[in-house]
Amino acid sequence: MVVVMSPDATPEDVARVVARVEGVGGEAFVSTGVVRTIIGLVGDIDSFHHLNLRTLPGVADVHRISDPYKLVSRQHHPDRSTVWVGPAGHQVPIGPGTFTLIAGPCAVETAEQTIETARMARSAGATILRGGAFKPRTSPYAFQGLGVAGLRILSSAREATGLPIVTEVVDARDVPVVAEHADMLQIGTRNMANFGLLQAVGEAGKPVLFKRGMTATIEEWLMAAEYIAQRGNLDVVLCERGIRTFEPATRNTLDISAVPVVQAASHLPVIVDPSHAAGRRDLVVPLSRAAIAVGADGVIVDVHPDPETALCDGPQALRGVELRELARAVRRLPPMVGRADAAGQVRA
Amino acid sequence: MVVVMSPDATPEDVARVVARVEGVGGEAFVSTGVVRTIIGLVGDIDSFHHLNLRTLPGVADVHRISDPYKLVSRQHHPDRSTVWVGPAGHQVPIGPGTFTLIAGPCAVETAEQTIETARMARSAGATILRGGAFKPRTSPYAFQGLGVAGLRILSSAREATGLPIVTEVVDARDVPVVAEHADMLQIGTRNMANFGLLQAVGEAGKPVLFKRGMTATIEEWLMAAEYIAQRGNLDVVLCERGIRTFEPATRNTLDISAVPVVQAASHLPVIVDPSHAAGRRDLVVPLSRAAIAVGADGVIVDVHPDPETALCDGPQALRGVELRELARAVRRLPPMVGRADAAGQVRA
Amino acid sequence: MVVVMSPDATPEDVARVVARVEGVGGEAFVSTGVVRTIIGLVGDIDSFHHLNLRTLPGVADVHRISDPYKLVSRQHHPDRSTVWVGPAGHQVPIGPGTFTLIAGPCAVETAEQTIETARMARSAGATILRGGAFKPRTSPYAFQGLGVAGLRILSSAREATGLPIVTEVVDARDVPVVAEHADMLQIGTRNMANFGLLQAVGEAGKPVLFKRGMTATIEEWLMAAEYIAQRGNLDVVLCERGIRTFEPATRNTLDISAVPVVQAASHLPVIVDPSHAAGRRDLVVPLSRAAIAVGADGVIVDVHPDPETALCDGPQALRGVELRELARAVRRLPPMVGRADAAGQVRA
Amino acid sequence: MVVVMSPDATPEDVARVVARVEGVGGEAFVSTGVVRTIIGLVGDIDSFHHLNLRTLPGVADVHRISDPYKLVSRQHHPDRSTVWVGPAGHQVPIGPGTFTLIAGPCAVETAEQTIETARMARSAGATILRGGAFKPRTSPYAFQGLGVAGLRILSSAREATGLPIVTEVVDARDVPVVAEHADMLQIGTRNMANFGLLQAVGEAGKPVLFKRGMTATIEEWLMAAEYIAQRGNLDVVLCERGIRTFEPATRNTLDISAVPVVQAASHLPVIVDPSHAAGRRDLVVPLSRAAIAVGADGVIVDVHPDPETALCDGPQALRGVELRELARAVRRLPPMVGRADAAGQVRA
Repeated sequence: MVVVMSPDATPEDVARVVARVEGVGGEAFVSTGVVRTIIGLVGDIDSFHHLNLRTLPGVADVHRISDPYKLVSRQHHPDRSTVWVGPAGHQVPIGPGTFTLIAGPCAVETAEQTIETARMARSAGATILRGGAFKPRTSPYAFQGLGVAGLRILSSAREATGLPIVTEVVDARDVPVVAEHADMLQIGTRNMANFGLLQAVGEAGKPVLFKRGMTATIEEWLMAAEYIAQRGNLDVVLCERGIRTFEPATRNTLDISAVPVVQAASHLPVIVDPSHAAGRRDLVVPLSRAAIAVGADGVIVDVHPDPETALCDGPQALRGVELRELARAVRRLPPMVGRADAAGQVRA
Repeated sequence: MVVVMSPDATPEDVARVVARVEGVGGEAFVSTGVVRTIIGLVGDIDSFHHLNLRTLPGVADVHRISDPYKLVSRQHHPDRSTVWVGPAGHQVPIGPGTFTLIAGPCAVETAEQTIETARMARSAGATILRGGAFKPRTSPYAFQGLGVAGLRILSSAREATGLPIVTEVVDARDVPVVAEHADMLQIGTRNMANFGLLQAVGEAGKPVLFKRGMTATIEEWLMAAEYIAQRGNLDVVLCERGIRTFEPATRNTLDISAVPVVQAASHLPVIVDPSHAAGRRDLVVPLSRAAIAVGADGVIVDVHPDPETALCDGPQALRGVELRELARAVRRLPPMVGRADAAGQVRA
Repeated sequence: MVVVMSPDATPEDVARVVARVEGVGGEAFVSTGVVRTIIGLVGDIDSFHHLNLRTLPGVADVHRISDPYKLVSRQHHPDRSTVWVGPAGHQVPIGPGTFTLIAGPCAVETAEQTIETARMARSAGATILRGGAFKPRTSPYAFQGLGVAGLRILSSAREATGLPIVTEVVDARDVPVVAEHADMLQIGTRNMANFGLLQAVGEAGKPVLFKRGMTATIEEWLMAAEYIAQRGNLDVVLCERGIRTFEPATRNTLDISAVPVVQAASHLPVIVDPSHAAGRRDLVVPLSRAAIAVGADGVIVDVHPDPETALCDGPQALRGVELRELARAVRRLPPMVGRADAAGQVRA
Repeated sequence: MVVVMSPDATPEDVARVVARVEGVGGEAFVSTGVVRTIIGLVGDIDSFHHLNLRTLPGVADVHRISDPYKLVSRQHHPDRSTVWVGPAGHQVPIGPGTFTLIAGPCAVETAEQTIETARMARSAGATILRGGAFKPRTSPYAFQGLGVAGLRILSSAREATGLPIVTEVVDARDVPVVAEHADMLQIGTRNMANFGLLQAVGEAGKPVLFKRGMTATIEEWLMAAEYIAQRGNLDVVLCERGIRTFEPATRNTLDISAVPVVQAASHLPVIVDPSHAAGRRDLVVPLSRAAIAVGADGVIVDVHPDPETALCDGPQALRGVELRELARAVRRLPPMVGRADAAGQVRA
């Protein structure tokens, strides 16, 4: 940490900062400038936080200079991680050596629709099936999902196709029942800072797909992932899904740069959700190609056999024709950036 | 609703939209233009949502033209509401005729600090005491609040000063214990879209202080308030607390315009939190004056007898000197905009 | 400046930074931490910028710790400035002791409309007349202003009412002709970073009304004001006019906090434009009251005798009834925050 | 256009709107709903704008439903355009069939640095040389470019390498001298809405590289391009260079979705500037790969033989090693998305 004193700080002000820092066992290096004095702090950063240095007389600013997250940081864990998803003997990877396609309906509506979509997804090369049973919706008057009945439908789709399931959990009280059916728990964008829920999924013993808050900085997102990691669960896959900006042409602005930025800062895998970022079907394939090229570890897309009748986010769901175009990209592009096809990588 | 067809839509495309709308009992008025056709829909808007019109061939866009929220809208409830807070016989108002000062520590730390702060608040004209027992923090390594022990301290501060208590609840599982101690339940900015929590406080039988999500539009905020109202609780006070923008000089950007915008759209009271918006003590009094002048129904501010030692948000907490300046503004300015002092308005 | 080294920086990396700094006559104070080393720099900050320290091996980050602007900073000019506008003998103030109302049509359309609006403005207590002759418009198909003919109409309105004129200049080549007719030159939001234009108005010998770029940080805005000041013109009045955010309910989000933030950082006067910030007539009076209460040195508002026929921004122009409400606020509120009525402060 | 009436609009209010529309030769289709009436307008949209319908009694809202730009729109020009850059007989393309690499120094510093960089660029497959002679800088104390001397250096680099030159013009008064030396005129992000400058380059007879304003919507950007096109110049290449958001990890947020969005709306070519978007060297190659994959018509990157000594934006300039990595991507990826290498496409 670095403490910057105001131009009118007195020597007593400086001495007070030094005394506080030394009082908790830290060291303080004072650099006296022409107009300002700065003080470098060395020691346990957590103990410095409790000092409230920013409120002391003569203090103009306090800069933090190291990562505030630890378990998810790449600083002490330089190799990037692979997360394995699925039942023992049938696990599929998400990580640096492969490219993973996750596909399925935004919302589970019926067994037929779900199983048909799962088959479409598998033919396109998907190795994990997505599908929402509990849906957080902006309006209380919108379709909220089938709940436990939806989880059962997802289980039957897994039986029918062999694809492991990822599905969202929106309430800490639902974590046990969702973890019973799902192979991977999804935390959605609106719940990124729902810390009680994060702690609950951290203890559930299943890998987590952790979406970025639509208005969270990358640092806040990694800090929130730390809440999950702290409970002993490091099987966390980060998912960039677009951030809120002033641009109205897309539902959100896909922050494609977040992929390499996160990969430099954290060892966790990071994938992209182009469907929710764009909110427009015509952008999903181009953005998926961009995700592969930028180095993402996978994409997650909405698919629907008949988007016109979808109960949720129909305008962004891929139909058969776009899904085949995506399948071609997923086969051809990853080898250009040094990745294998995840479809062939099951861990027995 | 208005459906805008693409320039290349066929007569069949238009007929399909009309048929769908009529199929759910609506009426469709077709206006054929030189380059485009538009179709005005009349009938039950919820039934139209399920039609997924946006996904039909030839449809370019669909515009919604009435409020998506109902219970909190001013459309069918033109008079602005007053919410009464506190035990029967000692209730204080938040509403259009008065100006309410809510003050207290960001976090409850000790009984002494809380009671001393409550006395400072009462002397300054505050009629409600704020204080955090459950704290949602960006970092899992930061102080998370005292929990139930903090609630007990708040209860003792109420006994000592007579001020009703507002405190935050961050997890649906905690709603019963918080509602047992508090007079008003606060939903914080990170939980604005935690719909399970909103439904839980909607059933708790206590008024709710409902903060805007730091990146929520006003419409999303009112839609979220509808989740509380739907469970039968219309005693909701909205709180503007700053939104996330590109400007780094303040922690958030106080959206002062949100006050008159909300008052035009909703009958619910709306107050301002200048402490969390600015994150800087020197801005709290000027922004509180602005809140009074723009027509807010109250302000909520952080106060601390000794901000240097505060465990949470010390840099923004008012000390005695600023609190006295705020007290003067709260006495003198509201009458200039036609409001009485809330301090004299207890409902027996 | 503070240079933060990476955890893996070598002693040679540190030595290289120190050598560079000393090479331009600066001093470098090294603080060696457990995981990182930080280096505090003392000396001429401009010479440090040319060193490109951020690109040296082992450097993780460089923090600037003093204001990058000088002439407009309050650091060496602690008293807030008053800018006087108008012909010698009839100058009116904008500054800390008064509150100034600037009013007039968004665009000059006809002599009749302009003179009628000027009389409405004067009756309401305005001391300066605004009006656009050169209009920067988003669409090339929108009305672009009357140009020099508009300047002549403004001059006749000044003769008719005695009010000095402020009008926008959008092209450096037009500065001489605008300066010939106007008493104050306005730089609009789209031109905040048009540095050639800033330098031209800096040399024109007239005070400048300098609007914030709709997406500029406060620091960038003050840096841009420095371009004007550098050419010898310190008669600059800053104008907060709303910033671009994700909120669609208002045209822009009025950053009311910018007023006290700017007043703490710069000695220049700062006023507020609620008309362009909100883009809605019903918000102009509440936001003007908020501007007075927060401590602004004035407001500038659009007025039109018949907004339905306005060629520009009709929906936000005040009509007679709202202007009288604003006039009452401008008379009654400033004394509550220690300001005199600017209308009585002509400097002979 | 669609006019939405308020719930309390009277039949007279509706009749007034209809009369106005018919008064300028338009047709109005009235749809009377249960709570609201909507009116569809057919006819000349420009004439409707002058009606100020939004200000009429009973009008709640007015929706525009067709593109506000014409010459740059794809609506009447469905084939995407190719822009040719360079002297007759040596023109190189930017357009849908190829992928163009533009590279060079952010700022021209010396003849040696420029020519060395130009040779590096050419070896990497660049077909156009970029380099700044007139630099708009946020601070008046930063290096502002060599001006005309810099243009002469760029001309000599063209002679040495055969690469046509693109360079920025920041002031309408400089357009003739820049057009005399350059093969393509660049409009930078800060000048996107400097309409006088746009009109000047529209008349200069050279193709234009037109960067998006860092806070402009895509629609505003295309409207601004219309200013250039209106003066008879349709040789405009759009350049996405990142937008301002709340995320601090990158200098701006590259809006990669803007590429397919613009390609759907406009026939003009669109390229990407990953250097200025990210502001970090380590992101330039991954983002360039993403640009190719998403379907951009080219990229423009900063290169410097010795970034540590660069006078401008050193931290983002590619060195030899990264440039070779970029060259590989530019050779290998475009064929995967159906594009030829622009290097082989000179038009004699």
